[in-house]
Amino acid sequence: MYSVCVRDHMMIAHSFSGELFGPAQQLHGATYAVEIELRRAELDGNGLVCDIGLAKRLLDEVLGSLDYRNLDDVREFRGRNTTTEFLAGEIFRRLKPRVAAGALGPDTAGALASLRVMLRESPIAWAAFEGPLA
Amino acid sequence: MYSVCVRDHMMIAHSFSGELFGPAQQLHGATYAVEIELRRAELDGNGLVCDIGLAKRLLDEVLGSLDYRNLDDVREFRGRNTTTEFLAGEIFRRLKPRVAAGALGPDTAGALASLRVMLRESPIAWAAFEGPLA
Amino acid sequence: MYSVCVRDHMMIAHSFSGELFGPAQQLHGATYAVEIELRRAELDGNGLVCDIGLAKRLLDEVLGSLDYRNLDDVREFRGRNTTTEFLAGEIFRRLKPRVAAGALGPDTAGALASLRVMLRESPIAWAAFEGPLA
Amino acid sequence: MYSVCVRDHMMIAHSFSGELFGPAQQLHGATYAVEIELRRAELDGNGLVCDIGLAKRLLDEVLGSLDYRNLDDVREFRGRNTTTEFLAGEIFRRLKPRVAAGALGPDTAGALASLRVMLRESPIAWAAFEGPLA
Amino acid sequence: MYSVCVRDHMMIAHSFSGELFGPAQQLHGATYAVEIELRRAELDGNGLVCDIGLAKRLLDEVLGSLDYRNLDDVREFRGRNTTTEFLAGEIFRRLKPRVAAGALGPDTAGALASLRVMLRESPIAWAAFEGPLA
Amino acid sequence: MYSVCVRDHMMIAHSFSGELFGPAQQLHGATYAVEIELRRAELDGNGLVCDIGLAKRLLDEVLGSLDYRNLDDVREFRGRNTTTEFLAGEIFRRLKPRVAAGALGPDTAGALASLRVMLRESPIAWAAFEGPLA
Repeated sequence: MYSVCVRDHMMIAHSFSGELFGPAQQLHGATYAVEIELRRAELDGNGLVCDIGLAKRLLDEVLGSLDYRNLDDVREFRGRNTTTEFLAGEIFRRLKPRVAAGALGPDTAGALASLRVMLRESPIAWAAFEGPLA
Repeated sequence: MYSVCVRDHMMIAHSFSGELFGPAQQLHGATYAVEIELRRAELDGNGLVCDIGLAKRLLDEVLGSLDYRNLDDVREFRGRNTTTEFLAGEIFRRLKPRVAAGALGPDTAGALASLRVMLRESPIAWAAFEGPLA
Repeated sequence: MYSVCVRDHMMIAHSFSGELFGPAQQLHGATYAVEIELRRAELDGNGLVCDIGLAKRLLDEVLGSLDYRNLDDVREFRGRNTTTEFLAGEIFRRLKPRVAAGALGPDTAGALASLRVMLRESPIAWAAFEGPLA
Repeated sequence: MYSVCVRDHMMIAHSFSGELFGPAQQLHGATYAVEIELRRAELDGNGLVCDIGLAKRLLDEVLGSLDYRNLDDVREFRGRNTTTEFLAGEIFRRLKPRVAAGALGPDTAGALASLRVMLRESPIAWAAFEGPLA
Repeated sequence: MYSVCVRDHMMIAHSFSGELFGPAQQLHGATYAVEIELRRAELDGNGLVCDIGLAKRLLDEVLGSLDYRNLDDVREFRGRNTTTEFLAGEIFRRLKPRVAAGALGPDTAGALASLRVMLRESPIAWAAFEGPLA
Repeated sequence: MYSVCVRDHMMIAHSFSGELFGPAQQLHGATYAVEIELRRAELDGNGLVCDIGLAKRLLDEVLGSLDYRNLDDVREFRGRNTTTEFLAGEIFRRLKPRVAAGALGPDTAGALASLRVMLRESPIAWAAFEGPLA
């Protein structure tokens, strides 16, 4: 199995509900370094898992909808804790239909096996979500 | 599948038995940067794989029993080479029953699918062990 | 000249005033990985620039007053942009009198030559402030 | 499952064929930080996945055949794009028979389950190939 | 003294003349992760050393003239070894007049004290050049 | 001013004397990632601060005298705490006369201005020593 991975980052504010979050119940923020790893069994005719330029553009587009925002004000997230693991899943759910719609090339969509989204929130903690694309 | 990972480190002395270890047969030491990655299929009601504060405390407790020690003097390790891969397995074996006993929360124990323990021993080498928690 | 450096991090929310900040005028956030480097011409009798445990505690105390907060609500920062470089300077200004008051040990205060505070805000940007302690 | 990983690097020139590569169609180059991760179900009698010194030597030997070269001039790569993912696969294909032939020790060959080869090409992109050794 | 630093990278091919370079006399290549650190005694009215967006654009422009090229074919470098330290100096020499001409803002030019350019060529080697801007 | 830096590592055991060291009074160990940065005002005729191959060999030779050892047993260190900052100074003191004796090339010795030795002991702490070579 082959993989390619591209990395970008976003800087957001948010707060969490629930006593177990302690001081993270207050409005605070995070820089998330975000990696998306795309997996595929065989390379295409160009020797690629997918066009890395398209992968960067797609990641940039999806992160751009969250970057420099207070996630407490994002309508889709109302009533939810935007934890690092939730955001990893959410970015996966936003990437998957775009990949299926051809954002990484029309022939690539069906060939990709799976996607892993990883968010590093600090030097000592990260979270990820992975699932099938096929 | 969701993951969360927390990182800490420990600083130990040890020596290895067996000619293939060359100069590492002498008493030397290592800083191990230790990461534990916990995996779970669905997030809990708080949007979490597990309480990251509890995960840090659990890792701290398990590493605390080895940190600043000469592993050649640790009774449980007598007759064994405390290689990086062995230590990854050993930390797994110390974490698993504590997780089962509720160290990451009473409801979390049954929900976690697997655990990966990774130890970076130098800029050019690391080892890991992973196994099921369920 | 000798140096020692310890690292910690904090997670804050803030917004900036001024058109040049573009989308960073919105409430957003950052994880700051913070390093403090202390410099000294000669080591003390223990072979130290300073007690690294005390240095960690001091950094933890100063970052603790900012961590998990919305810096727009911090009274001392009213009317100021809490840019990464400003925060590096501010952490320096909070550390310097504590060092002078003996937070790193009574004999250490006078022996330290200078302090550098560095904040990494993302994988592609950091800022720092350095100044004399003597 | 246990893993050990060693890391080295190589510095090569190459160019790509195909309009989608844009400026990378020109002759350019890359530093590849290369990691090989070897996996095994049980440790051997020395407490090892494999002799890490042998693993370093093997990686060094395989990278040595590519290091400081223009890959456009390497006969085996004629007519192919030496993308990062292709090179990850190629290094795997060069390592596998050597492992089978005993390069990591005569008893290790049959015991290793799988191998993952990862190449970091820049701070924001990497690729990998993994496959079974058994 | 305050600093801000931004980072980008470029991927080039080149070869060196001189027996001491050994295999690096052959055409090979490198990924250079490039950091530019700008220093200033006092922050401006916005709380900045300089507009970080402008700094990124300036670095992108200067690296863009070298990225994805074979430096052996760059006219200005004829007869020179484009070593990592030479390139650090060269990027400094290309940045300095642009800063003086206002690329980081008209009021910033005169206020910046110095600039350091650092190029990481591999996990085990880097080079830098620093000089005054004033 | 130009710089070049090369990096290697060593793995040692040691213990410290003095109550302030707490658990580090016990025999423990460390992996030290060691960087040496050499500074020079002008490049030589090859476009170099110094031959990086010679710099790696020199670092390897100096670290080789300490690697895989218990520093409590090293005669020269008797009665001293081999703290990270002490070791940075010690490595400087071992490198300086070798550089003066031509280990980096006969013409390089007099041209180098200064040397900085940095030891990373863990993900959250490092120490350094720098001094003139001229």
